[in-house]
Amino acid sequence: QNILVINSGSSSVKFSLFDMTHQTETASGLAERLGSDAAALTLRWADGEYRQALHDSDYATVLTQIIAVLTEQQLLHHLPKVIGHRVVHGGEVFSDPVIVTDEVLASIRQCIALAPLHNPANLAGIEALATLYPDIPQVAVFDTAFHQSLAPKAFLYAVPYKLYEQQGVRRYGFHGVSHQYVAAEAATRLGISAQHGIISAHLGNGCSACAVANGQSMDTTMGMTPLEGLVMGTRSGDVDPGLHQFLYQQKGWDVETVTNMLNKESGMLGLSGLSNDMRTLEAAANEGVERAQLALAVFCFRLARHIGGLATALTRLDALVFTGGIGENSRFIRATVIENLAIFGFRLDNELNARNGDMLGVISTGPGPKVVVIETKEELMIARAALALI
Amino acid sequence: QNILVINSGSSSVKFSLFDMTHQTETASGLAERLGSDAAALTLRWADGEYRQALHDSDYATVLTQIIAVLTEQQLLHHLPKVIGHRVVHGGEVFSDPVIVTDEVLASIRQCIALAPLHNPANLAGIEALATLYPDIPQVAVFDTAFHQSLAPKAFLYAVPYKLYEQQGVRRYGFHGVSHQYVAAEAATRLGISAQHGIISAHLGNGCSACAVANGQSMDTTMGMTPLEGLVMGTRSGDVDPGLHQFLYQQKGWDVETVTNMLNKESGMLGLSGLSNDMRTLEAAANEGVERAQLALAVFCFRLARHIGGLATALTRLDALVFTGGIGENSRFIRATVIENLAIFGFRLDNELNARNGDMLGVISTGPGPKVVVIETKEELMIARAALALI
Ligand SMILES: Nc1ncnc2c1ncn2[C@@H]1O[C@H](COP(=O)(O)OP(=O)(O)O)[C@@H](O)[C@H]1O
Ligand SMILES: Nc1ncnc2c1ncn2[C@@H]1O[C@H](COP(=O)(O)OP(=O)(O)O)[C@@H](O)[C@H]1O
Repeated sequence: QNILVINSGSSSVKFSLFDMTHQTETASGLAERLGSDAAALTLRWADGEYRQALHDSDYATVLTQIIAVLTEQQLLHHLPKVIGHRVVHGGEVFSDPVIVTDEVLASIRQCIALAPLHNPANLAGIEALATLYPDIPQVAVFDTAFHQSLAPKAFLYAVPYKLYEQQGVRRYGFHGVSHQYVAAEAATRLGISAQHGIISAHLGNGCSACAVANGQSMDTTMGMTPLEGLVMGTRSGDVDPGLHQFLYQQKGWDVETVTNMLNKESGMLGLSGLSNDMRTLEAAANEGVERAQLALAVFCFRLARHIGGLATALTRLDALVFTGGIGENSRFIRATVIENLAIFGFRLDNELNARNGDMLGVISTGPGPKVVVIETKEELMIARAALALI
Repeated sequence: QNILVINSGSSSVKFSLFDMTHQTETASGLAERLGSDAAALTLRWADGEYRQALHDSDYATVLTQIIAVLTEQQLLHHLPKVIGHRVVHGGEVFSDPVIVTDEVLASIRQCIALAPLHNPANLAGIEALATLYPDIPQVAVFDTAFHQSLAPKAFLYAVPYKLYEQQGVRRYGFHGVSHQYVAAEAATRLGISAQHGIISAHLGNGCSACAVANGQSMDTTMGMTPLEGLVMGTRSGDVDPGLHQFLYQQKGWDVETVTNMLNKESGMLGLSGLSNDMRTLEAAANEGVERAQLALAVFCFRLARHIGGLATALTRLDALVFTGGIGENSRFIRATVIENLAIFGFRLDNELNARNGDMLGVISTGPGPKVVVIETKEELMIARAALALI
């Protein structure tokens, strides 16, 4: 039972091949720098690695190549049973994974206005594969779907209501596959009853946190777009809504320039002036670079502030989960955030934190809510969702 | 000991006259609709009210009229000993009230970029009075000053650092006079030791909340401008920073149009489509108007979310204070917010809430943190600050 999972972006296609009989990843890879002369395909598996240049960068060629290379390398013996696609924006239409049909494609197309960079690339990947392999069923799994359980009081912005009705202006939230998985995993590992309250912090290049009650998303930090909320690698997270006009008046920057700056030159990179990479920044901070220390302090303060805010969407708080590249690995970030959350009764076990958690991932001690480190498995979750639908 | 307190806006001048020997307000009034044919001056005192049309709307004429009318009505027997001015934006220059000098005026002028609507009007009022009554000392009291104690991790946005260095882009916070007063008053009334942690929620037409530790502001919801944070009468509070670009792309609205909408057509007015006035909305909600109910739900959810977030800036949480027109009067808003804060151990006493608090203003019960209703006294605080400086 082979399942291929595809995440197609505007200049890259990530893929993972799963053997669902054993629930293991057979291989994974990346086609990157698409559209440029340096376009290349990399494939990694248990005992090997393979790399080749790509001469044509259109999705059909790239995806054909991916399947061809997997076959050549003896990683794929039959065509995949189903292909699972990560789709960024499902708007208000999708609250669960779906088998791709013409109607589904039309709905994904309708969400392009909400994710103008991501949805077109996701669509192109699905359409190319549908044409190449019309007999393989395809499943779309949405980053926004898990958060469709938010109540109107949590998803509405305080702007004219017709902007919601006519333009779909509301909080959608992202990283849903990850939040859903790590929260469920935390509840299982910790033996928390169905009546749980869990906050998950997905900290990677993009960062978001989510309040989960009884398996349902109650509130989350990302909003209509993945720019709102926490401080991220290059994204600002929350700013004053008056900032755009201020920068227009003071510097003559139009809204496109400002939005671009908030997406690409802000966050940890903007504050530190050094890097968007947390490892680099921690190393610099350890060597005494002040602006790196400052960026880390802002990151942790804002993260703790949002966790405190999300907690009010819960009636009980059993656990806080850290996941994503930063959440799974950074002892410093976890320790600092938990220090800032003393008021909730969180208490860190330094020794457990130093080794990224005990057997269950737990890094806290004492009677307060637990803190647990859980590796996210977004691709495996997409594969499982895809398998479940056919 | 008469002290006059002036709050000059772009089309109005509010004023209060205090008798500091008895710490009482002798009279208060409003010159409004300045610059229009309907410009008028209203004065109220213990046993009277007076109203007249204003033919000239320049600040010098209006302020001369105010003092003339107070004198005619036998409310003012000598010229005021000092005049206290509310000034909206003190930037990073002012962390306390100051006696107005040429240097102070220059610094207030430098903050105009940060408060283009308010600071010019505040300045005009000060300058007019300085020319009219060069012998009366004038004191400037800043809305931002109390929040100058925020640490960089709390006041920096995650945008390129040079925007802070060169343009002053940072969180400043507002309503400082009110937050400082009600937090101090709460600590005194409740007999909380110097080591206190208090959150104050100032809910009027503008709304903000503030975390106060040991008398110092640690974090607050308004930001670089008074548009960030909580849902307000006509202001949106937080939105996704990608909203401006989305509305530009979808509707062709430029940044000025969007900012104007976020300031004037959003908040409770935008959500309800009905009114920005909380009393009107509560009445409508009681009659079953759905959009009014929705607006109230969003207001309370967002307020609770921010209170939860602010709590993480404290190491202990002793009390939550409600103030401003809504905070002092709305049983419904207080009850709903406290319900949303169950996770912090707040517990409402319904009977105390129904009468806006016991003798001390307390409306909570049980062992958790206290909730207290305190009438804000911004004008009296400005008068006290002015008196203290001369
Ligand atoms: N040991 C570590 N300590 C601190 N940060 C780490 C560590 N390992 C990875 N990271 C950080 O994780 C981030 C990338 O997270 P990841 O989840 O892989 O990204 P993406 O969101 O693209 O999936 C980078 O900022 C990286 O520096
Ligand atoms: N009894 C009441 N119940 C609910 N809201 C009230 C009540 N009394 C006043 N308010 C509300 O208080 C708000 C005005 O607050 P106020 O502090 O006077 O404003 P400002 O910020 O202009 O000083 C209005 O929304 C008004 O409806």
